[in-house]
Amino acid sequence: MASADFVITEANALAPFCTDWRGRYTGQPLCVVLPSDTEAVAAVVSACAAAGVPVVPQGGNTGLCGGATPIGGEVLISLRRLNRIRSVDADNNAITVEAGCTLQAVQDAAASVDRLFPLSLAAEGTATLGGNLSTNAGGVQVVRYGNARELTLGLEVVLADGRIWDGLRALRKDNTGYDLKHLFIGAEGTLGLITAATLKLFPQPREKATAWVAVVSPLAAVRLLGSLRAVVGDNVTAFELVDRTSLELVLQHMPRTRAPLQGQHNWHVLVELSGACNHLHDILEQALQAGIEAGHIIDAVLAQSEAQRHALWALRENISEAQKIEGISIKHDIALPVSRIDEFIQRAGAALKAVSHDVRIVCFGHVGDGNLHYNLSKVDAQSNEDFIAQTPVINRIVYHLVCELGGSISAEHGLGQLKRNEVLKYKSLTEMDLMRTVKAALDPQGLMNPGKLL
Amino acid sequence: MASADFVITEANALAPFCTDWRGRYTGQPLCVVLPSDTEAVAAVVSACAAAGVPVVPQGGNTGLCGGATPIGGEVLISLRRLNRIRSVDADNNAITVEAGCTLQAVQDAAASVDRLFPLSLAAEGTATLGGNLSTNAGGVQVVRYGNARELTLGLEVVLADGRIWDGLRALRKDNTGYDLKHLFIGAEGTLGLITAATLKLFPQPREKATAWVAVVSPLAAVRLLGSLRAVVGDNVTAFELVDRTSLELVLQHMPRTRAPLQGQHNWHVLVELSGACNHLHDILEQALQAGIEAGHIIDAVLAQSEAQRHALWALRENISEAQKIEGISIKHDIALPVSRIDEFIQRAGAALKAVSHDVRIVCFGHVGDGNLHYNLSKVDAQSNEDFIAQTPVINRIVYHLVCELGGSISAEHGLGQLKRNEVLKYKSLTEMDLMRTVKAALDPQGLMNPGKLL
Repeated sequence: MASADFVITEANALAPFCTDWRGRYTGQPLCVVLPSDTEAVAAVVSACAAAGVPVVPQGGNTGLCGGATPIGGEVLISLRRLNRIRSVDADNNAITVEAGCTLQAVQDAAASVDRLFPLSLAAEGTATLGGNLSTNAGGVQVVRYGNARELTLGLEVVLADGRIWDGLRALRKDNTGYDLKHLFIGAEGTLGLITAATLKLFPQPREKATAWVAVVSPLAAVRLLGSLRAVVGDNVTAFELVDRTSLELVLQHMPRTRAPLQGQHNWHVLVELSGACNHLHDILEQALQAGIEAGHIIDAVLAQSEAQRHALWALRENISEAQKIEGISIKHDIALPVSRIDEFIQRAGAALKAVSHDVRIVCFGHVGDGNLHYNLSKVDAQSNEDFIAQTPVINRIVYHLVCELGGSISAEHGLGQLKRNEVLKYKSLTEMDLMRTVKAALDPQGLMNPGKLL
Repeated sequence: MASADFVITEANALAPFCTDWRGRYTGQPLCVVLPSDTEAVAAVVSACAAAGVPVVPQGGNTGLCGGATPIGGEVLISLRRLNRIRSVDADNNAITVEAGCTLQAVQDAAASVDRLFPLSLAAEGTATLGGNLSTNAGGVQVVRYGNARELTLGLEVVLADGRIWDGLRALRKDNTGYDLKHLFIGAEGTLGLITAATLKLFPQPREKATAWVAVVSPLAAVRLLGSLRAVVGDNVTAFELVDRTSLELVLQHMPRTRAPLQGQHNWHVLVELSGACNHLHDILEQALQAGIEAGHIIDAVLAQSEAQRHALWALRENISEAQKIEGISIKHDIALPVSRIDEFIQRAGAALKAVSHDVRIVCFGHVGDGNLHYNLSKVDAQSNEDFIAQTPVINRIVYHLVCELGGSISAEHGLGQLKRNEVLKYKSLTEMDLMRTVKAALDPQGLMNPGKLL
């Protein structure tokens, strides 16, 4: 069992665990425990189950929906000390890591045997694998490698009654019954606590080609993606849409940024090809030239050096930061069928302008996955307060259209505390009932991370 | 509801539904119903649930483990008439099909919009998508594209109580709660009946390069796979191991086959690169030359035409057929970490020869997935009968070693009736209990395909 050093009850020491990264949720747990191995996690969960006390798991505390923040009265189990890389198998392209490893530590362990672990997101230096798996994290390379779920071969999980399920298989094929790992991935700790995982590794890309492209419309971006894939297949490893407002905010607020192209354009794409395929730079150049001739592309620039590549990526990666400087906005993390992105942008824009004629739309995201970050505010801080007060009305417009077009109201951030009520409006009764049936079967006492997801 | 024409009760008409493709299992259902839409399936299941009558779903009846064969007393629901392609969306790389579509029909619908649906297996002209999903089918392109599970975006399912769950989403990202589709994929119809699916499509490969390679050992094959991937990444779309006995049986029994290389070699690999990448033929030739210089490869030949490519594939595809001509054998469909394949082959061979000095081992399979077909018999038909009688002893040797090396006793065929008891020896009590908990929650009456999997 964990020693007294690893049970925190003192208020100042508890504080960092009690509030989420964005500062929107706070709750007071009974205590924080920091077990250092799976058996200790199991002992804590078992004791809580016996006492009827709820538990909340926490990794790097970088979640965006309050999924790892206590609602009050739980034992908070921090997985940070479960941070061993248990094994790396280059021949099998697999790595087994504990839940408290940071994403960066897993990437580094893979690189040390000349392999790639492709999950990549802004918080990777702090976010832990257990949290990445519990929220089925996405990021910038999903278009090629999939979400956290698709990168997982096996799991070790502490169940609600404290038993340990060892499902750490490093197999590409295993058809011996229900694939239980998928129950726990993306479940936000509500069905069990992930303590370790076996993950897929990939060859390191040998070459990268990166371009900033002005396109005539979101539809042209989708067409460009299709034509690139026809030429280089899955060597398209990033394909990010950036609207004019997003770019302008970055250029205005972030030092050492400059416009990558002459003139002003309404829609841009940051495209990156990478892989083992040769001549990616030439292939990308030819494809962009063809896009210009076909009328989809207005202008484009290819990175000619690693420094230029970083400069282009900085324009994409600083959008949220630049936007924050201007004040708060109503944010949406939505997914759509890739073929409906253009229609969504047109119809949502028109509907919002009908309600609020000077709404400012910041629209960017992972077009290859159909995932848009669609954030709304006013230019004038004075009138923005009134606008933010209209959040329920604005959300209804956006989410109703997302739903009509067959989309999702949470693409990659999860439900947590933020959207657990919102989702009730957009899922069928049958689906909600199925989810509750699964929850009741695996956590009959309802002690696993209560107040989240369901 | 289905009309009287589509309820079969007459013995001769029932017969084709009552026995599995290999002829090892037979059961007498109460009747066969052939509903033509999801609502009709739901009405049948609902009526059965109300009456407490079990149901068994059946697609193309090509399964290898008796998973779709009645055990007796069920209503057999044939999904064959649910065979519409509901929609194809090339821009979103997605297709929605009903469960009774043959795999071939889905491949053809994808090709009609210049896309690839990559699931491919011998029975594809008859096997249906519903069965492919219920058994999480594999096949020859898993090394690149994954199993049926990885190719699925959404499902429509009739639940055990007759409700319809519409989970037909065509999204790459959707983190709004438990990912319920994974409960039903690979569940062999024991949790609900899959009636339709939304599947991923891919760009059509523009180029293919195929070679037959003699390697010094299974370990050399694994190393060759690693070095090829380092050069061409995921353009390795097939990587099949073939042992000397397998090739000799094909050359001996199958007309119009000839040895692809001079001399005799113990281990071969059929490797295929395909994709949008250019110069695959040259890349493969250079990689094979490097393998010869490194001492992994003894000799190799590249297909110079489509006819030569088919001739090489015929050597791989006819192994089962050639083996059948020689009589029955004890078959194993196993998976291992790719890095343990060499060790398995050495240790299993030694252990089997200690029990039966003249055992004949036919070993081939999908090395890139760690999936071996490992089939055992005697050369002499006289002594083979005694050998087959020792199946429990032989299985114990093979499966114990598979288990010790972290493998699976059913890689791609499922459990069905064939391995539902065998699996109890190799899964933990916790895992079996979790599976039973899920089953009891989703099918509390135990009416969905009883006698299979669990």
